Amino acid sequence: MSSPGPSRWQRLGHEVRLATRIFDVHGVRYRHPGRGTEREFIVVRPPDWVNVVAVTPDARIVLVRQFRFGIDGFSLEIPGGMMDPEEQDPVATARRELREETGYAGGAAHLLGSVHPNPAIQSNRSHFVLIEGAEPGHGQDWDPDEELAVETRPEAEVFRLAETGGITHALVLNALLLYRAFRRRGGAAAV
Amino acid sequence: MSSPGPSRWQRLGHEVRLATRIFDVHGVRYRHPGRGTEREFIVVRPPDWVNVVAVTPDARIVLVRQFRFGIDGFSLEIPGGMMDPEEQDPVATARRELREETGYAGGAAHLLGSVHPNPAIQSNRSHFVLIEGAEPGHGQDWDPDEELAVETRPEAEVFRLAETGGITHALVLNALLLYRAFRRRGGAAAV
Repeated sequence: MSSPGPSRWQRLGHEVRLATRIFDVHGVRYRHPGRGTEREFIVVRPPDWVNVVAVTPDARIVLVRQFRFGIDGFSLEIPGGMMDPEEQDPVATARRELREETGYAGGAAHLLGSVHPNPAIQSNRSHFVLIEGAEPGHGQDWDPDEELAVETRPEAEVFRLAETGGITHALVLNALLLYRAFRRRGGAAAV
Repeated sequence: MSSPGPSRWQRLGHEVRLATRIFDVHGVRYRHPGRGTEREFIVVRPPDWVNVVAVTPDARIVLVRQFRFGIDGFSLEIPGGMMDPEEQDPVATARRELREETGYAGGAAHLLGSVHPNPAIQSNRSHFVLIEGAEPGHGQDWDPDEELAVETRPEAEVFRLAETGGITHALVLNALLLYRAFRRRGGAAAV
């Protein structure tokens, strides 16, 4: 079989298949430039998401444990949430979500990186923000259905949890990977 | 504000909001055990997914580059796909997807780990499988709309791409994180 290399399909238009509070689902029509065939592909369209690696002055990472409806069970994670429509900067979302979920707030911040949660079927990006000097006492502000247990753990323990199944949220694992790489390069938060 | 710790909500039932070829979307009704309030939460339900870290005898990782409709652009990834209903073992899916997408096949295999792509809104898991001794020439078998460019790169270069934005697929990044941790522990594929 020959391998001509992948083509850029031509986007023709879309129909909304489902609209929810947290994402829309589109049926997007594409035409293959060579074959001329038309197909519809399903695309999930949420706003961008942000997760926060919040580090205390004594090098502990702020974690939240909560019941998650997607897996019908509990999950240990770092704080995070959706970017609000008026938020242009992931750092602003990170500071807001950190304070709302945990009552922690910090100083210097740094965008560790951004990923696509699933390029095959999902349009949005997830941004990962480091916030240093995080300290408690700034007042939580939970959504009506939100309940979180807040804790901090030493960085080394969090990395171990990430590698041994104690943390299973794919995007949280990404954030921790990028944070560890950032530290290994000797990085300090800059914003 | 008091922090009573998160409750396990009681699952009451669901309605199918959307059914597609690659996932269903359910509206799932839950009741809070303390407050008695009832809410509906949206849950995306795909089959489990598998990604393959396929390593050649000279320590290169097999990569695929393809057009991805979710992001309307190209993405560099490791091979992967959905588990078929009759596949009980992620290793079987990994061997099948690796051969179908790239024509590579290998020897010893090892389950590197499993994650939840998004515990908040999605029910499934992603499994990551290492296949060692991968060699080409076993015949590709693409789906009708699949077009991939296959290449191999040295492990160190792939890790660098993962940390510097050359690879942006969150689940692929997870697989590479777990593979690197496995190697650092001195692991060899076992199955």
